[in-house]
Amino acid sequence: MQIIRVETPSAKYDVVTGSGLLETLAPRIERIAGRLPRRVFVLTSAPIWALWGEVFSASFAEPPIILFLEPGEKFKTLGSVEKLLREMARAGGDRGSLLIAFGGGIVGDVGGFLAAIYMRGISYVQVPTTFLAQVDSSVGGKTGVNLPEGKNLVGSFNHPLAVFADIGVLGTLPDRELRAGLMESVKAGIIRDRALVRFMEENAEAVLDRDAKALEKVIAASIRMKAGVVNRDERENGLRMILNLGHTVGHALEQATGYKVLLHGEAVGWGMIAALYLGRKRGTITGGQFERLQTLIHLYGPLPELNLKAKKIIAATGSDKKNVGGVRRFVLPVGIGDAGVVEDVAPPELVAAVSYMLAQAGPAPAK
Amino acid sequence: MQIIRVETPSAKYDVVTGSGLLETLAPRIERIAGRLPRRVFVLTSAPIWALWGEVFSASFAEPPIILFLEPGEKFKTLGSVEKLLREMARAGGDRGSLLIAFGGGIVGDVGGFLAAIYMRGISYVQVPTTFLAQVDSSVGGKTGVNLPEGKNLVGSFNHPLAVFADIGVLGTLPDRELRAGLMESVKAGIIRDRALVRFMEENAEAVLDRDAKALEKVIAASIRMKAGVVNRDERENGLRMILNLGHTVGHALEQATGYKVLLHGEAVGWGMIAALYLGRKRGTITGGQFERLQTLIHLYGPLPELNLKAKKIIAATGSDKKNVGGVRRFVLPVGIGDAGVVEDVAPPELVAAVSYMLAQAGPAPAK
Repeated sequence: MQIIRVETPSAKYDVVTGSGLLETLAPRIERIAGRLPRRVFVLTSAPIWALWGEVFSASFAEPPIILFLEPGEKFKTLGSVEKLLREMARAGGDRGSLLIAFGGGIVGDVGGFLAAIYMRGISYVQVPTTFLAQVDSSVGGKTGVNLPEGKNLVGSFNHPLAVFADIGVLGTLPDRELRAGLMESVKAGIIRDRALVRFMEENAEAVLDRDAKALEKVIAASIRMKAGVVNRDERENGLRMILNLGHTVGHALEQATGYKVLLHGEAVGWGMIAALYLGRKRGTITGGQFERLQTLIHLYGPLPELNLKAKKIIAATGSDKKNVGGVRRFVLPVGIGDAGVVEDVAPPELVAAVSYMLAQAGPAPAK
Repeated sequence: MQIIRVETPSAKYDVVTGSGLLETLAPRIERIAGRLPRRVFVLTSAPIWALWGEVFSASFAEPPIILFLEPGEKFKTLGSVEKLLREMARAGGDRGSLLIAFGGGIVGDVGGFLAAIYMRGISYVQVPTTFLAQVDSSVGGKTGVNLPEGKNLVGSFNHPLAVFADIGVLGTLPDRELRAGLMESVKAGIIRDRALVRFMEENAEAVLDRDAKALEKVIAASIRMKAGVVNRDERENGLRMILNLGHTVGHALEQATGYKVLLHGEAVGWGMIAALYLGRKRGTITGGQFERLQTLIHLYGPLPELNLKAKKIIAATGSDKKNVGGVRRFVLPVGIGDAGVVEDVAPPELVAAVSYMLAQAGPAPAK
């Protein structure tokens, strides 16, 4: 078990990762919250609850109130939020109630947002069940839902009381989701942690075989990296931007494919290839570093083929939420273990980077 | 012109009250925000904009983007919020955009909530146009909307960059709304400001005639009282509870009449009568103080008749959002200029207080 401390100006809490956390959840929350309130809500999805509901419930003396969110990005809406808020009100939720978000990234985003706005804020705990949610979306306090006009356009910064990332629940995660999630760990290594890059290079087999020790190490290192950045830049004004390595092009790929073809981690994987290319052209990484990091990304692949035109992708990079005042921002790797933000990527550079990425992503399998 | 400073752990800002603020709004905001962003949104209602839109717009070099909220409590919903968020997204609002809430309490509550959740938070400014919004809802950071299950069940604590309470716009306010709003100033005096009680006793005619000097004095004193309380208890954990004098029964009256018969201030006026009765019975105020304060309330009346049964009102007091863990809280006056919170009001006491209030509120005009 490892404990990572998150300390921002507005919240201090622990992220706990390890095995057997789910079986002991209620006493762990009681230790933090003092005692469990009269109303404990669990936001989850039916498939997750079918697999893990019994284990989850066992440690609670009184059964919590279960709220279901239908799985899939298309239910990450204000409509779902309204429905869930009403269920909470009808079930007698008050300001002292607690919400536990038990599921993947969407459950975490919606759960954190529900907790942020129900009666102007109640406490909540994150229990992420996917690799991606464990290393990424459960730390940082970003919560919210989509609008038809764009992803994550509505939400708030709202930190949980604690995060419990149980390695055991990853046992039922589909292989493709694990591999996609691991792209965020590759990213963590590239921007901030050389030792993680090396560990992931040398232990790919154990990690992909879901060896508990290997997974715990990768997850803890990824969370520690993100916590370190968030601790210094809660509101994404500066340093936190580097967490978006691979995301400018990654988001564009997701948008251009209607969020239906690629998992988020897969889009970020391709986006990192484009960013590595830009970094190499600008000399922020060497040719050797470029080859090494590209190999690492493919080691945790395969990334899906892309059947897209460069033009469409480039157009989509213009609508990223992180663009303030029309400036298009890029995160570039700086050696291995550091990164920086640039705002002056010219259209021809971008075209070259996206074309390089697409050449790798064609019908012939990427190597 | 008077400036009242609000300083909470999470925000510091000024509330400015006086005449001629609307005519000079843009430069005033620029002084605070540095410069106006590319997208300035104004949330308002059509009737307000018809009266004051031209004056409002005159000081802006570039016309702001106007968003309309339909007037009335029934549009204070998540449905309206979603519609407005989408309009903002389509109009190109980004994280640097600014929202100005220009209207009564509902516009302020919805506007503050939009600003809280659009792209996880943008800046906003309050320009309240009713007496009630100027003295009450624009200070304290409470924002949000209703659910079918209850009022203000959804929202967040979100402070504005600044509040500009222009006395001039009160010129077009219906008399009944002014009188209802003044109940919050009576409340401010009772719980925290003996001098305000005296001023309102001695200057009722000037205040009700909308004499600018008299209004500015009452408004500034009311805001100063509330700011002082909020400064010490931002999240309503303790002291801030005293702001709810008259609200336990007041909310019950609003609920029991379906929010259609009474203005909020009128309900609070009647609720204060019940609270004064409880205070007198418990000896927290003397018989003389009871008479004096009751006279003051009626001086700013008339309060509307109530055709309700005590039973129904008492049942409705149980569903107040401020009740945590099932406890029914009451704020009682302590002398003139102080107040305290009790949680042990027994049903017979409550019945007596509500019955006294109803006896005054019967078809024979209250005296």
